[in-house]
Amino acid sequence: MVYDLIVLGGGPAGYLAGERAGQAGLKALVIEKRAYGGVCLNEGCVPSKSLLYSAKVFDYANHGDKYGVSVSGASIDQKKVIERKNKVVNTLVSGIEMTLKSHKVDMVKAVGKITGRSAEGYTVEADGQVYTAKHLIIATGSSAVVPPIPGVKEGVESGMVMTNREVLDLTEIPKNLVVIGGGVIGLEMASYYNSVGANVTVVEMLPKIAGPTDEDISDILLKNYKAKGITFHLGAKVTEVKKDAVVFEKDGKTESVPADKVLLSIGRRAVSADIGLETIGVEVNRGAIVTDRYMKTNVPGVYAAGDVNGKSMLAHTAYREAEVAVNNIIGKKDIMRYDAIPAVIYTNPEVGSCGETERTAKEKGYDIEVVKLPMAYSGRYVAENEGGNGIIKLVVDKKYRRLLGCHVLSNYASEFIIAAVMMIESQWKIDDIKEFVFPHPTVCEIIREALFQVKA
Amino acid sequence: MVYDLIVLGGGPAGYLAGERAGQAGLKALVIEKRAYGGVCLNEGCVPSKSLLYSAKVFDYANHGDKYGVSVSGASIDQKKVIERKNKVVNTLVSGIEMTLKSHKVDMVKAVGKITGRSAEGYTVEADGQVYTAKHLIIATGSSAVVPPIPGVKEGVESGMVMTNREVLDLTEIPKNLVVIGGGVIGLEMASYYNSVGANVTVVEMLPKIAGPTDEDISDILLKNYKAKGITFHLGAKVTEVKKDAVVFEKDGKTESVPADKVLLSIGRRAVSADIGLETIGVEVNRGAIVTDRYMKTNVPGVYAAGDVNGKSMLAHTAYREAEVAVNNIIGKKDIMRYDAIPAVIYTNPEVGSCGETERTAKEKGYDIEVVKLPMAYSGRYVAENEGGNGIIKLVVDKKYRRLLGCHVLSNYASEFIIAAVMMIESQWKIDDIKEFVFPHPTVCEIIREALFQVKA
Repeated sequence: MVYDLIVLGGGPAGYLAGERAGQAGLKALVIEKRAYGGVCLNEGCVPSKSLLYSAKVFDYANHGDKYGVSVSGASIDQKKVIERKNKVVNTLVSGIEMTLKSHKVDMVKAVGKITGRSAEGYTVEADGQVYTAKHLIIATGSSAVVPPIPGVKEGVESGMVMTNREVLDLTEIPKNLVVIGGGVIGLEMASYYNSVGANVTVVEMLPKIAGPTDEDISDILLKNYKAKGITFHLGAKVTEVKKDAVVFEKDGKTESVPADKVLLSIGRRAVSADIGLETIGVEVNRGAIVTDRYMKTNVPGVYAAGDVNGKSMLAHTAYREAEVAVNNIIGKKDIMRYDAIPAVIYTNPEVGSCGETERTAKEKGYDIEVVKLPMAYSGRYVAENEGGNGIIKLVVDKKYRRLLGCHVLSNYASEFIIAAVMMIESQWKIDDIKEFVFPHPTVCEIIREALFQVKA
Repeated sequence: MVYDLIVLGGGPAGYLAGERAGQAGLKALVIEKRAYGGVCLNEGCVPSKSLLYSAKVFDYANHGDKYGVSVSGASIDQKKVIERKNKVVNTLVSGIEMTLKSHKVDMVKAVGKITGRSAEGYTVEADGQVYTAKHLIIATGSSAVVPPIPGVKEGVESGMVMTNREVLDLTEIPKNLVVIGGGVIGLEMASYYNSVGANVTVVEMLPKIAGPTDEDISDILLKNYKAKGITFHLGAKVTEVKKDAVVFEKDGKTESVPADKVLLSIGRRAVSADIGLETIGVEVNRGAIVTDRYMKTNVPGVYAAGDVNGKSMLAHTAYREAEVAVNNIIGKKDIMRYDAIPAVIYTNPEVGSCGETERTAKEKGYDIEVVKLPMAYSGRYVAENEGGNGIIKLVVDKKYRRLLGCHVLSNYASEFIIAAVMMIESQWKIDDIKEFVFPHPTVCEIIREALFQVKA
């Protein structure tokens, strides 16, 4: 049998490509080597949210006084937290498998490898079987970067050094946790382990945390987490991981911080090796598969979606890329746009952002107006955040009076940043957006309030 | 001095009309008899959210087990809850006064009454002074309906019977609270007092709770709150309020339920009497001022915004109506639309909805498709809601392939329903909306998921 489509990888890009292909009536096969749902569902975004929610419940219990609630003793059971996380993940993985089945998508759980091209299509080998398809979507994702720092390899082997995978399975709370890399994954895990009682240190090479997050927001986040007891070493380069410590250089000096466990979260790299790309000549740049805006590679009929193309490394980007690829396969015109991809950090409170930051807008030469408001302009925020110091920041294109970016540090930011995504994507004028009626009292109203502060 | 604009009433419609007028350079006066912010801020939506948030913190403490958190000895201090609520309200009221001042809007705290028309404009008397303005915006709001049921008048006088005002100031948790009217206000307060330990009974005249809320959703809400211990009597007509009980008729039988306190939440009525409308001939229909889509009354230069026009009785509608009125006063074309006004019930979990329900869409003759999904399709929902039974329901116009309504029972629904508001208001095709990238993992993604289930 010749498939219409073989998808290599069953993560967000892969399983959704399978689902959408099935919905469109294609005969599809999704090959996954580990577990459907990929890194995101099994050892990334979803399980971390399960942990972080437990931490939030624990935080509420410990800090209820501000809201008139007293608690005499609160404790968190890490084993139960991990058990629950596993239950959540298993439920969702089963859901994906059921959905694929319901759309008559075939599944093979094995390592898949492209072997070449026949008269009928591309050939892929998995578990000793050869499968053929007219189209391929490569969605093999990414893996955590493990740098060649002395001691890291040994630490990984002994279990002392963890990546996103192992940190989500820790059944005991470490006394001293050192997080190398203060980006999204690093901060979320630092936040969790800080809440549940570990002594957390973050070592970051850059002078700021939270990666490309707007600097006004990452500055407040830094301040808040310092106040919660996390130690930060910025502009610090790790030079060695010892059995009980992490050594780093900062301002020309060598320092050391005690560590029972180390989380390595310095970045992720596309998984493009050993999958047979060379057998059909797929172009790769620094490990990432090169794609155009239809998600096509240089090889006709071969697409790449998700982390493996190195464009955005976010699950929701992967979803959309998978849909664009499937649409182009079935002859429906669809183009991938990256202008308003949202980004969320599930700290407490959360960071939600999309579009240009003040910095990137300036770098791109836009003539911009920036509006910055404290979240205290929202009645619900005031009602729910004693002593909160969140902000919203809008970046507005003065020439066309359009929203370019929106950046929020606040509870619920993850859930309402979609409103800003829609405003940016639709390229509406500021005056038109003002006509939408936001529900009151909500935190999301702050977007509307900020829009009315735009002078441009 | 002749004002450009006098606003009667300083609630959401009134203070925002003042603010927008000031921003537009008009010389404006806002007259408020009680407190700026009106019912919404002082004795309605905002203070209730402060209470409900304390209840949520208390709920977390009591039900943390599911998430691996154990708590001993959780208690809630009603006096502290009310003190905090007062602090929140005072902060926000000050904020409004400061904002009005910063836009050079005059404020008078007194009862305002229209006295007629002079050569220079309309005249309004307040606190013995006469003010004149070229334009008026009437924003006198609404008050709770107090029905002529035997015993209610005496109950109000003794303090046993409360409206939205008094229920937010109770410093002791009643043993037996009877809520007459299971609409939004009734349910939110029933939810609060149930969480903090009162024995709560809801008596509702209609066969369902939650007013115009979609029936699939109000049914689940009813089931959930029954499970939490609230007693509901639907299709029940209250016939008497005694000193220690509420008497009602149901299915021809008379029943009685013990009550220390009674909350009256059967509806609200426009406040249009005794404000001098007759002196200039403003048309009123059943107590509500008649307005067109520019928020104009029948009298040139006289507008009405907010609850007093009886159209929607929601603070966010009032905001937008105020803006439409001010825009028309300054000669900027603006039209009020009511197609996608969101509505929220801050139960736990929340209800967020906008646009047509299945019932209203059918009544209006639309050819519709209904998509109903359990919230379990959202990974974050599963991670944060042990045993949750929320749903999302979309109402789609089959002819034009557009979204007509969206109804959600879930945590965060209040904060992400704005996405559906924008989809409905923009009249986008379903296929176009599918291209927006929602952040993952969020609960709001369920909208996207549901859109992909639309067949129409």
